[in-house]
Amino acid sequence: MKILNDGITAPVGFEAAYTCAGIKYENRPDMALIYSDVPCEVAGVFTKNIVKAAPVVWDMDVVASGIKPQAVVVNSGIANACTGEPGMECCKMTAQCVAGHLNIDKNGVLIGSTGVIGMHIPVDKLKAGIAGLAESKSSSRLCAQGAARAIMTTDTYEKELAVETIISGKTVKIGGIAKGSGMIHPDMCTMLAFITTDANISKSALQSALIADTESTFNMISVDGDTSTNDTVLLLANGRAGNDRIEVGTEDYDTFCEALNVLTKTMAKGIAADGEGATALLEVTVIGAPSVEQARVIAKSVITSNLTKTAIAGHDANWGRVLCAMGYSGEAFDPDKVTLSFKSGVGEVVVFKNGLPVEFDEDFATGILSESMVTIFANLNAGDAQATAWGCDLTHGYISINADYRS
Amino acid sequence: MKILNDGITAPVGFEAAYTCAGIKYENRPDMALIYSDVPCEVAGVFTKNIVKAAPVVWDMDVVASGIKPQAVVVNSGIANACTGEPGMECCKMTAQCVAGHLNIDKNGVLIGSTGVIGMHIPVDKLKAGIAGLAESKSSSRLCAQGAARAIMTTDTYEKELAVETIISGKTVKIGGIAKGSGMIHPDMCTMLAFITTDANISKSALQSALIADTESTFNMISVDGDTSTNDTVLLLANGRAGNDRIEVGTEDYDTFCEALNVLTKTMAKGIAADGEGATALLEVTVIGAPSVEQARVIAKSVITSNLTKTAIAGHDANWGRVLCAMGYSGEAFDPDKVTLSFKSGVGEVVVFKNGLPVEFDEDFATGILSESMVTIFANLNAGDAQATAWGCDLTHGYISINADYRS
Repeated sequence: MKILNDGITAPVGFEAAYTCAGIKYENRPDMALIYSDVPCEVAGVFTKNIVKAAPVVWDMDVVASGIKPQAVVVNSGIANACTGEPGMECCKMTAQCVAGHLNIDKNGVLIGSTGVIGMHIPVDKLKAGIAGLAESKSSSRLCAQGAARAIMTTDTYEKELAVETIISGKTVKIGGIAKGSGMIHPDMCTMLAFITTDANISKSALQSALIADTESTFNMISVDGDTSTNDTVLLLANGRAGNDRIEVGTEDYDTFCEALNVLTKTMAKGIAADGEGATALLEVTVIGAPSVEQARVIAKSVITSNLTKTAIAGHDANWGRVLCAMGYSGEAFDPDKVTLSFKSGVGEVVVFKNGLPVEFDEDFATGILSESMVTIFANLNAGDAQATAWGCDLTHGYISINADYRS
Repeated sequence: MKILNDGITAPVGFEAAYTCAGIKYENRPDMALIYSDVPCEVAGVFTKNIVKAAPVVWDMDVVASGIKPQAVVVNSGIANACTGEPGMECCKMTAQCVAGHLNIDKNGVLIGSTGVIGMHIPVDKLKAGIAGLAESKSSSRLCAQGAARAIMTTDTYEKELAVETIISGKTVKIGGIAKGSGMIHPDMCTMLAFITTDANISKSALQSALIADTESTFNMISVDGDTSTNDTVLLLANGRAGNDRIEVGTEDYDTFCEALNVLTKTMAKGIAADGEGATALLEVTVIGAPSVEQARVIAKSVITSNLTKTAIAGHDANWGRVLCAMGYSGEAFDPDKVTLSFKSGVGEVVVFKNGLPVEFDEDFATGILSESMVTIFANLNAGDAQATAWGCDLTHGYISINADYRS
């Protein structure tokens, strides 16, 4: 398996486009298109928030219908959430407009939206944007990168990646773009991510692979504990690699899942590291747990603790806050068996062992916690299962961004 | 029922004391004593965090034992949490020392601690502090107020109150002190609060009253979603008012509960308003719910949403974040039936109705949200139950306080 310096158009048959449509803000790329020259199998994972944005409802219908879509259109200015019936009408109109320009089935157009909740998307700008996208789409690096940029809101850099593997003697590629970086919480599928592959794979295998994968990747990141109304991960497979059709339970399926996981984990970590106001990627690994589920719950509890996150922002080895967050996770464990340590590129420091504080050099610990990637290790010493969650520190930057994001 | 400008020593027979023991910081009051001249019935509610501080374990034993305590001793420098067996030994020694000075049963000494996790309390300073407390205790306003101050950590003002009611022809008083203001979360009993009363009441009635009361008061506040290892509410009743003994299910019981609720609700709101870095008290009231439990879960979800809290900090009527937080609460409701409004001393603005955004004057809304107490009203239009939760905005101040609290 190889990691490629590439993106959404790496798999054969996929094109992308981006444009400045001025949906909410002028002079920045705010619409993106992903297009496949043949219809695709599709899998999706969506927010579990009761309040679902119109495009989420739309995409859930498309994915459930068995229709083979050929395009995804995204805007990053207005979320089209809490917009009632007019919001659904907007989705219908969007799909028709895209289908008309690309000469494809209107039922095969997927829609992504992110941005402000409760506003309606200006129809004229949307239509003009779609026309521009259809005209400029290509399989170039520039277009793929532009699409990665156009779906960003408060993100400070693009998240894109492609990987390559061999399945039944054929080269199969998977490419993806994703955006964060606020309203990110692991209880659901989290943020927008669009993944393309030229693999030949059945719809059931595709959906199964995506659901299993998000459990250990996109569902294990948190920026602020808020779960968006728009969270969507879509995985499109156009079969152009020409490999034998992949089905669940085969070796080829495992190979595909492994490659997908490398891609999604990298993007998930990218989203966490680029969390609003973040100065550090925070990784929490819980080992020695009786079950993976328990390890996940405890890791997520630490990653979402405001007090742990502010301690990391202050480069303060305040491990009491970590143990406290583990304690209110809802999972039972014996605190007297726990070992805790902080780790980064410059070293590791054990701070708690067998129920008691361990003396440590504060300056050394501060050095460890001053790196741009910090890991908290917790060993429950109660089993063999483990899990990792990713988040970021909580800083003045987060407050600045969110105290006046809408205006 | 009367609200008194008084505190912990308002009920007959209670005395208080405070001192600067230098447990963790020099030159600030950091130890407090509450003493009753006769043994008390006691009720307690404690943190549900798996990681319980030594004094929490100690107090749970005392409350469960049926022993009638006469004293509570508190320090606000070191939490005595995650300190293993030495932490429990420290509690034992503390109780012995207090009992010796006050000439009371050592099994009737309750202990409260708050502050840094994972450090041991310096024994010499603790002993000297206890001696000072025993020597200076009195029923004066000064001592009560000093005790309220001495239990503070990052709090910016004391929370104390007393109320008075008539039960079986006798004047009964209830007094209380409490402290916040970080690591506050409604899933458990929250922070430290010590409540005294001269009511004559059975232990079962006292415990029943306290448990029911915390459900709608201390359990409905949140500052940062972090549930402390040390959360404790203790309610001591010494019977000195001379009323007929209060039992559950009587009119007198209801009268007592009503007075208790006025006291605890005021203190709970005081803690929320004084949340770390807070510039506004945020009240979230959910009405029209099918059940009180559902209304509580939704209200708590909004009060703990970082994005809602930062919007309030920015005086931004960003109601989408509110609806979003309601949506991920885990409770089912129909977003299309919801009405949302913001309210404060200067007026009310409806922002969402029947599933659709309502046009509103942004300047007027900003004015409403610029007050020091802001209410979010959500009507689910699906029943008659309601609940209110209290929290605060999330500001740069919170980050500043917590990025270097320990050092």
